[in-house]
Amino acid sequence: MTEPLFDSIALIGIGLIGSSLARVIAAKGLAGQVRIATRSTETLDAARALELGDSYFRSNAEAAEGADLVIVSVPVGASEAVARQIGPHLKPGAIVSDVGSTKASVVRQMAPHIPDHAHFIAGHPIAGTEQSGPEAGFAELFENRWCILTPESGADPEAVARLRGFWQACGSMVDEMDPDHHDRVLAIVSHLPHIIAYNIVGTADDLETVTKSEVIKYSASGFRDFTRLAASDPVMWRDVCLHNKDALLEMLSRFSEDLSSLQRAIRWGDGDKLYELFSRTRGIRRSIIQAGQDTEEPNFGRDAHKAEAGAAE
Amino acid sequence: MTEPLFDSIALIGIGLIGSSLARVIAAKGLAGQVRIATRSTETLDAARALELGDSYFRSNAEAAEGADLVIVSVPVGASEAVARQIGPHLKPGAIVSDVGSTKASVVRQMAPHIPDHAHFIAGHPIAGTEQSGPEAGFAELFENRWCILTPESGADPEAVARLRGFWQACGSMVDEMDPDHHDRVLAIVSHLPHIIAYNIVGTADDLETVTKSEVIKYSASGFRDFTRLAASDPVMWRDVCLHNKDALLEMLSRFSEDLSSLQRAIRWGDGDKLYELFSRTRGIRRSIIQAGQDTEEPNFGRDAHKAEAGAAE
Repeated sequence: MTEPLFDSIALIGIGLIGSSLARVIAAKGLAGQVRIATRSTETLDAARALELGDSYFRSNAEAAEGADLVIVSVPVGASEAVARQIGPHLKPGAIVSDVGSTKASVVRQMAPHIPDHAHFIAGHPIAGTEQSGPEAGFAELFENRWCILTPESGADPEAVARLRGFWQACGSMVDEMDPDHHDRVLAIVSHLPHIIAYNIVGTADDLETVTKSEVIKYSASGFRDFTRLAASDPVMWRDVCLHNKDALLEMLSRFSEDLSSLQRAIRWGDGDKLYELFSRTRGIRRSIIQAGQDTEEPNFGRDAHKAEAGAAE
Repeated sequence: MTEPLFDSIALIGIGLIGSSLARVIAAKGLAGQVRIATRSTETLDAARALELGDSYFRSNAEAAEGADLVIVSVPVGASEAVARQIGPHLKPGAIVSDVGSTKASVVRQMAPHIPDHAHFIAGHPIAGTEQSGPEAGFAELFENRWCILTPESGADPEAVARLRGFWQACGSMVDEMDPDHHDRVLAIVSHLPHIIAYNIVGTADDLETVTKSEVIKYSASGFRDFTRLAASDPVMWRDVCLHNKDALLEMLSRFSEDLSSLQRAIRWGDGDKLYELFSRTRGIRRSIIQAGQDTEEPNFGRDAHKAEAGAAE
């Protein structure tokens, strides 16, 4: 184990992402000490029981005090309040970052409250599961996943490099882009898929002609896939919708337009058009598997015996 | 191993489902002999190389000759042609069934061509993967999955019981319902999810402002889940759309209506409405996991280390 990258890291928010950071920081020895803060006493007690850090705080300001790196992992709607609390307590040279799924809004919320003697560099690790809370985290969450940083144009290159090094030490690959572009990209690869998943599960839940028991029994024919995303943290996703509104509405419009066209092809029995779409979508999955971003096992390798069958092929 | 359920089983079509049947029939000794037919020479050669049966035919009629059970596993649009071919060659008492994802259309297509001395009982195992072809099958595919039979009102109870016993021997649980109800149920649990998945992957593929490389790199944030369903067999899914049109259009309308309402909530910042939907959808996933129809591992247990972390929780 080499020298820690930071003497002191403060983790504000200790849910799935925050607690995974705590675990990988400990596993790889990335910090001299880890200071954990969360508003909820229950969550803080859970973090303490899991021994995720060295000190525990109900106050975000106290946790940030003296930290060299502060990572804020809260629903994006809470970003401004957190920045306002920690801003006055940041030490000179401190790096402040976050993990929120929207970036333009987070930069607008947080940047004004970070003093000139500290560095604010927004970030977003493209990693997660449908579970939430400090128990759900694990040290390998960020491995082989991308982390996107969206530094402002005047950002200190050395601070950006240190933050980049931190995410690489967590196992991630790091990209940089501007916040607006990040929000457009995430609108299509993450936000729209979640909205669609929530929506279809809601539609199924509301049917009068098909019972809930039938939906559950026969869900292995496709529906169950959507229920995973639709089991994600509701506060986090409410905030994403409210804070990436423009890009999300644009993607929703395109999706609905395309769906209307597909619906018309179904109504008028245009088999060629259906076949054309259904064929070209296969290539994208192949590329994702080749890029190491998903398993090639059938059904995501869900069941042990299926994984074996896949391996025997 | 007990006595075979059938002296001779003919499998017409030897893709994912047909070849999985061949494998489970062999593994459990359910037939004295297995006769395999498929139109494509290449696929037939593959089935032979995999030793999936006892005899191999390019002619569906020849394969059906003398068989006690004939299972047709072809895209639903090909059902009528197959029934027309095998009808005159069925032996007295033979049971003919299928595995198609739509049932009203299959009954309309096949029933008229099955002679009175044979029994036609349509069926649909609710099992599959995104892969296709004889190499993709495995003996455990039907285990702990439901199979829906849609016998006509005058169907011979003994023949229905034998077919039910066959699917149970394959590891499935068996339900009966009428074809129209089946088609409504499957429209929501399977057909709509596939259409939506194909559509969103198509929408992403068409974007000018986000590159394909970005979609692939960052797909672990949600999008990749949809690409699995959107990698399914295009001919099969074209046929499903064309043959379950009414139920599918009804579900598409409801889905789009709900999505418009969600879109409006996003546009007007109605956080309470978003939170309400995002909360109630969690319960359905819990029920699916409790019913043994999906894994409780985060991210479907995609990666070994994640499975371990899940187990350690």
